[in-house]
Amino acid sequence: MEETKERKIVVAVDESEESMEALSWSLDNLFPYGSNNTLILLYVKPPLPVYSSLDAAVTGDPVAALMKYEHELVESVMARSRNVYQDFESDIKIERRVGRGDAKEVICNAVQKLRADMLVIGTHDYGFFKRALLGSVSEYCAKRVKCPVIIVKKQPQDN
Amino acid sequence: MEETKERKIVVAVDESEESMEALSWSLDNLFPYGSNNTLILLYVKPPLPVYSSLDAAVTGDPVAALMKYEHELVESVMARSRNVYQDFESDIKIERRVGRGDAKEVICNAVQKLRADMLVIGTHDYGFFKRALLGSVSEYCAKRVKCPVIIVKKQPQDN
Repeated sequence: MEETKERKIVVAVDESEESMEALSWSLDNLFPYGSNNTLILLYVKPPLPVYSSLDAAVTGDPVAALMKYEHELVESVMARSRNVYQDFESDIKIERRVGRGDAKEVICNAVQKLRADMLVIGTHDYGFFKRALLGSVSEYCAKRVKCPVIIVKKQPQDN
Repeated sequence: MEETKERKIVVAVDESEESMEALSWSLDNLFPYGSNNTLILLYVKPPLPVYSSLDAAVTGDPVAALMKYEHELVESVMARSRNVYQDFESDIKIERRVGRGDAKEVICNAVQKLRADMLVIGTHDYGFFKRALLGSVSEYCAKRVKCPVIIVKKQPQDN
């Protein structure tokens, strides 16, 4: 068995099917048997909304409620990720990272800070207008990140 | 040794350092020992210029001269590619493909026609203006190709 260099592979995960497909693809293609690679699951929470004391509609403790909801969301995404990687045969080193802010900015910064060797992002196959409106995290990261970026699209059923 | 699925991996090669870096990265990361993957080197010649009989400057047989020049260019790129992959330890199935036309269109069409499993493209780290002017083959392909696209950037010396 050939010895392989240890690599840090960041996979951006969120609530989407696309991100789970990217995770699954990464396991199949970037974690060969006997490799030394580390899988870093990166989840980004959205920026916290700013509540004003003048907001009449805000009752109770909205921040605490939001935190609880977010915590559940993170756990749900990590549980889905676990479902994807737990059946994978090799022993894989897995790290979980959770950031907060604008997803594309946080992902780029995390990749740099972690000195990652690859970034894997799932992407939607949006049409022109939706893409123009929503922007594209993968496109943004591909331009800014220094390491190789792998863009995985959700495969149609006939492919 | 785990058996791996056979995959067709297209690496777009041209005269640039970036494409050789993408090829080298692919070998290191996508061709694990014992894998069954096929490396397809894809080179795209530019569209043929149209000569008019009114062009006074055109003497001799410009098409033949161009063909000869192009042939030498293809051979030179393939020789550079060979220098990159010949030291690679595993046995790799290698195919050479040469297309003609607008590089980004030809690459996307070839990936689809070959039913490739991955496309790897090296890219320049252009600034905003140069990118806006030149466009980006990798960006175009990442949007249009259905299989995962891997964008490899030339690594700076300090990274």
